[in-house]
Amino acid sequence: MTEDRRSRVDGARTRAVILRESVAMATIDGLEGLSIGNLAKAAGMSKSGVYAHFGSKQDLQLATVEEAGRIFREEVVAPALVAPAGVGQLVALCDAFCEHLRRRAFPGGCFFAGAALEMGTRPGPVKDRVAAFQGALMELIRQFADTAIAQHELAADEKPELVAFEVNGIILAADTTYVLHDDPGVLEVARHVIRRRLGVS
Amino acid sequence: MTEDRRSRVDGARTRAVILRESVAMATIDGLEGLSIGNLAKAAGMSKSGVYAHFGSKQDLQLATVEEAGRIFREEVVAPALVAPAGVGQLVALCDAFCEHLRRRAFPGGCFFAGAALEMGTRPGPVKDRVAAFQGALMELIRQFADTAIAQHELAADEKPELVAFEVNGIILAADTTYVLHDDPGVLEVARHVIRRRLGVS
Repeated sequence: MTEDRRSRVDGARTRAVILRESVAMATIDGLEGLSIGNLAKAAGMSKSGVYAHFGSKQDLQLATVEEAGRIFREEVVAPALVAPAGVGQLVALCDAFCEHLRRRAFPGGCFFAGAALEMGTRPGPVKDRVAAFQGALMELIRQFADTAIAQHELAADEKPELVAFEVNGIILAADTTYVLHDDPGVLEVARHVIRRRLGVS
Repeated sequence: MTEDRRSRVDGARTRAVILRESVAMATIDGLEGLSIGNLAKAAGMSKSGVYAHFGSKQDLQLATVEEAGRIFREEVVAPALVAPAGVGQLVALCDAFCEHLRRRAFPGGCFFAGAALEMGTRPGPVKDRVAAFQGALMELIRQFADTAIAQHELAADEKPELVAFEVNGIILAADTTYVLHDDPGVLEVARHVIRRRLGVS
């Protein structure tokens, strides 16, 4: 490996370490609560070291949303995409979300649930990215529901967008209740609720 | 009115003005983001004037949670309590919650949805009060569901705690999606979803 290549690889690794820390911190203090100083302390780096990767707080916030999206896709969406099409995908998404909560991927629960409420009152590019992520997730759930209806797993008069709204509600209730009460029983309730709603035993 | 009585009434009014502002601010910046300085500025008062009412940040946070609870009970719970018992109460609660969002009672949507996520990682008396409120609300919804089952409005094999979980999910999805996308259509979807779920036309 050339000196130059090694330095780029090290740089990418450092950036990844900072961002993982940043997503975790944002689930405690919010995206507005992120500061290059606090992040440097948490990652055991100098402030100038963090500055070298993110020129401004907004750049850091945008990169944090992107990294949170990458982790969500890897941990929650990917298991659903390889599940049996239709109801199987809806159940797999909900189960993977509960598993993401159960092993405390982040201390404050689902990054996007918190970010949506926090950014709602803060128009700008960071809010736009959070809204785009949430919109894409809802569209994916809607497609799963559409397939489930087409395959007669759900009644013909079900509306995919209403099913998506309910599934989103179930995962939000799991997140909020689990984060607040720290009770794994909540995740079992969520697993029951989604199965009962979708007619799966 | 005696001088002393007038002064107590004025004091109570001032405290109420500060607290209303405080609940609104907490839906933007969180309970941790509250500061006596910012609050004094927002309420057009001196810092010492605010200090006279709340000796510490924690006192202010506790009083803010209490005031948010009072407003929620007045605007969301009270309309449900006077609705027809059972499914009628579940629908009325959801409708009143959507109405609370629609007229932007607070800029950042439902106070408790945000407070639950924020306080989840902050053990202490403020978190305890938020958790107690959330627990009492869930118990109330569970009782409404229990009545609905006893009256045969819901199937005999429905579980009240699972219905309560779903209803909580529907209002959380309404809050999160409305706050993020600022689209009143979301509230119409929530009204449809709750009716369909409960078998009401």
